[in-house]
Amino acid sequence: MGSEQKTVDVNFDSLLRIFTVPEGPDSTLTKIEDGLSKNLNQFLREHIVAEEKPLRDIEKDFSNPIIPEQPEFVSDHTQHLLDTLVAQSVHTSAPSFIGHMTSALPYFLMPLSKIMIALNQNLVKIETSKAFTPLERQVLGMLHRLIYSQDDAFYSHWMHSAGHSLGAFCSGGTIANITALWVARNNALKAEGNFKGVEKEGLFKAMKHYGYEGLAILVSERGHYSLKKAADTLGIGQESLVSVKTDDNNRLCPTDLKAKFAHLKQQNIKAFAVIGVAGTTETGSIDPLTDIAEICQQEACHFHVDAAWGGATLMSNNHRHMLAGIELADSVTIDAHKQLYIPMGAGMVLFKNPDAMSSIEHHAQYILRKGSKDLGTHTLEGSRSGMAMLVYASMHIISRPGYELLIDQSIEKAQYFANLIDQQDDFQLISKPELCLLTYRYTPKETIAALKVATKAQASQINDLLNGLTKFIQKRQRETGKSFVSRTRLNPGEMHHQNTIVFRVVLANPLTTYDILESVLAEQREIAKQAPKLMNQINLLTEEICQTNN
Amino acid sequence: MGSEQKTVDVNFDSLLRIFTVPEGPDSTLTKIEDGLSKNLNQFLREHIVAEEKPLRDIEKDFSNPIIPEQPEFVSDHTQHLLDTLVAQSVHTSAPSFIGHMTSALPYFLMPLSKIMIALNQNLVKIETSKAFTPLERQVLGMLHRLIYSQDDAFYSHWMHSAGHSLGAFCSGGTIANITALWVARNNALKAEGNFKGVEKEGLFKAMKHYGYEGLAILVSERGHYSLKKAADTLGIGQESLVSVKTDDNNRLCPTDLKAKFAHLKQQNIKAFAVIGVAGTTETGSIDPLTDIAEICQQEACHFHVDAAWGGATLMSNNHRHMLAGIELADSVTIDAHKQLYIPMGAGMVLFKNPDAMSSIEHHAQYILRKGSKDLGTHTLEGSRSGMAMLVYASMHIISRPGYELLIDQSIEKAQYFANLIDQQDDFQLISKPELCLLTYRYTPKETIAALKVATKAQASQINDLLNGLTKFIQKRQRETGKSFVSRTRLNPGEMHHQNTIVFRVVLANPLTTYDILESVLAEQREIAKQAPKLMNQINLLTEEICQTNN
Repeated sequence: MGSEQKTVDVNFDSLLRIFTVPEGPDSTLTKIEDGLSKNLNQFLREHIVAEEKPLRDIEKDFSNPIIPEQPEFVSDHTQHLLDTLVAQSVHTSAPSFIGHMTSALPYFLMPLSKIMIALNQNLVKIETSKAFTPLERQVLGMLHRLIYSQDDAFYSHWMHSAGHSLGAFCSGGTIANITALWVARNNALKAEGNFKGVEKEGLFKAMKHYGYEGLAILVSERGHYSLKKAADTLGIGQESLVSVKTDDNNRLCPTDLKAKFAHLKQQNIKAFAVIGVAGTTETGSIDPLTDIAEICQQEACHFHVDAAWGGATLMSNNHRHMLAGIELADSVTIDAHKQLYIPMGAGMVLFKNPDAMSSIEHHAQYILRKGSKDLGTHTLEGSRSGMAMLVYASMHIISRPGYELLIDQSIEKAQYFANLIDQQDDFQLISKPELCLLTYRYTPKETIAALKVATKAQASQINDLLNGLTKFIQKRQRETGKSFVSRTRLNPGEMHHQNTIVFRVVLANPLTTYDILESVLAEQREIAKQAPKLMNQINLLTEEICQTNN
Repeated sequence: MGSEQKTVDVNFDSLLRIFTVPEGPDSTLTKIEDGLSKNLNQFLREHIVAEEKPLRDIEKDFSNPIIPEQPEFVSDHTQHLLDTLVAQSVHTSAPSFIGHMTSALPYFLMPLSKIMIALNQNLVKIETSKAFTPLERQVLGMLHRLIYSQDDAFYSHWMHSAGHSLGAFCSGGTIANITALWVARNNALKAEGNFKGVEKEGLFKAMKHYGYEGLAILVSERGHYSLKKAADTLGIGQESLVSVKTDDNNRLCPTDLKAKFAHLKQQNIKAFAVIGVAGTTETGSIDPLTDIAEICQQEACHFHVDAAWGGATLMSNNHRHMLAGIELADSVTIDAHKQLYIPMGAGMVLFKNPDAMSSIEHHAQYILRKGSKDLGTHTLEGSRSGMAMLVYASMHIISRPGYELLIDQSIEKAQYFANLIDQQDDFQLISKPELCLLTYRYTPKETIAALKVATKAQASQINDLLNGLTKFIQKRQRETGKSFVSRTRLNPGEMHHQNTIVFRVVLANPLTTYDILESVLAEQREIAKQAPKLMNQINLLTEEICQTNN
């Protein structure tokens, strides 16, 4: 199995070699690793093919369900991975890949990740993680302080306190949100009298004990899709996720929140959590957190903030005011693998009250014994890697002012791009950026004018055609491989709340230049010409509207 | 921030450097990385201190909740990590670290992990993972076939089918088990007539619709602690996790399972899932899966097998018969980060029926659109890393016969160690190994004899003292740092089902030698002498028992 062997035989000595003998300096794998280390971007540019291969063709390379009976040389297999996997992967760190929340990462994280993986600690318990446990607790403390700004005495008392956690490190924002709602549900349906609590007796008995007709979680129409998953998993049901109206800036409307509370109360439905979104996935909007907090306090309801995306903004003293009120939340989700520039797999949920998580505490005989400081007593997941180390290192090497610069430049860049779109006569900015996320679409100049005078029915007709055009452009641009924007569906007020397909752009990558943004628009304008039939239909309808309404 | 700079200033150009300029060949970080690559074991031996530092002292290094205002040089921070974190981490891959399910890992996984992290794909959707999605689907297909042995037509039809998944790749076994029970719950309480299904309407309405008084999940007394967490999360309640009796070999007793079903039915409680354990965490025992499957079929109940630990045994044609009946399960959990020798964070759940997961399917507008092949439509987690690549590579490089050898040698080693313990006159084997896991304790020779004639009360008294001794030995051995075994609490029949603290040993590491096993026993015998007071009490009680009963 070593790369020097000529034939591959399966025997225990050759197997032991792979556990004891590293790849040689001239092996294919070592060369690749060196290539990555020396110039990641060049490596990815050279190895990832630009033009998209149809998924069906890629699948042919990954179609064999049989676990091989014959071992492969490490070098042969590495070459195979380069040709089939790396070549057809996505250059998520490319400066022109601005469609999703991925970015270039700091270089030092690659070798540090290797240390993390080589140490292979398991954070579920101290026995398999030792110093990694206090480190993770410190990272949770840092994020807690970033949000809640408690004093030194608070952290020196709680950060390493046995039987307590200031939060949980998770694989991502979804698990973080589920954890927060799990805690909220269990605290809302806690033990009382003869009732032993929902964690022991389950939801059915809890509802009977408390005499509620139903439960509800309130969140804006723009809440992340994973919240439906959370409501399903936790036994609340997706329909109990009650949508609160948003204003034209995609922000939750506090008046409607109050109305929803009143309406639910009339039906004897217990609203046990409100979720404020700090950076919606589709438009980057931030809900009015202070107003929501006030309503939650009146209603004695758990207030959770999903700041998976926007939470990093707290690092910037210039922009953290946009999240004002987050310090009033009972719990907050932040993803470090988004704008804290950490590799995939680093979510966190923080709780204001160090006692909050006791409602989900659990123990076992062989680990997590009572009084232990094992992190696994308060996590939904069990075995977990030492990802917290990467957050810790980045906090120290980049520092808060460094993160501030990264955040500030991303917001400036989004404002620049929004202005650029506004200056074009054939693009429409659909949602203005609050953070570094915005949406827009390509619309021929004359059609923009026509939309201003169109009837609702006419607008709807033309909107359907524009939706087709947006989809076409987005798909073709992705396939061409020079740049990538994503797309989503919104219902903006200025489009009569009709389904509107838009380009969605996230400008977190510090390597994305203004030139790239200009060329993205130029490319989209060119691609539009490649759909002559659709463009023709749009033009005809545009003329018709202008004639009938002028 | 580069290691060559003399002062660290925060400006955008210096920040851009960390995203574009790799660490130099002479930097501290590169040197460490090279050290790891050349000889991981030597690196860990040299950098991890052997003797345990009290946790309170380690915590002092991780006590500051303030995110630094001043950036650090990469090299300075790396040195800091070496001194405070790496030095005080756990050498989980050491051949003498036999207390938990960690092991040495194949060398090639280190550079491959680096590729995975450098590519930073997000498996939630094809747009951020492309070839990684078919690859993960193939890995799930391989594991599915390993368990269920369906024919080629099955896999060519289902493996890459849009809207279907043969399972889910997760961060670990806990999420895998929760996913399986989530699917089972939703299928048991599915839409019917006016009822839209538990996923939509929640548990309370589901129970009222179906007219059940309660729900239950049946599992042996030795089931993993995470199942309680699953029952809590899913709204079933921990008390609805009904314990089924085990025999003296810690295996679920089918007669009691039948009795429990009957008893629950009388109370109008719907048992919607039975969990068979294939490799219990504490004793490595395997439940009688075929018998359980038969009962589940009669009861039309979801049969889940938690093979997080034992599932890898299927790789060995010599031992896979131990898991006979697993192919009858509706779902199976396997952790690749256990005996498939993958780094932390690689769990999987497989479903026999490709339609099973439709009960938890979910969609969003900007990704996971209907008809897409995005893996995120069927996972509890959202954003996820490309860990499946490491499983894929290991399957090809090690191959099935290679894994067979690894499994076989671990089982042989456990049998050797069991025999070795049996040959000692001052050690008691408490649970015999089925897989590579066993439990035992140190008991003075005369006390072993005394226990045979002791009354139940006397045995209980002496057992309490022995429990103290086992705890003392385990703790001191860990602190000394030469070797590590874990401990747990069992209630073995031969100890009158009294609480019995035992050493727990997992022999998965191929580098663990027979010599090491001998020295572990020798060390424990020596440590016992360091508790003279406890030993004295045991001896006095032993003498008393011998006098009164002979």
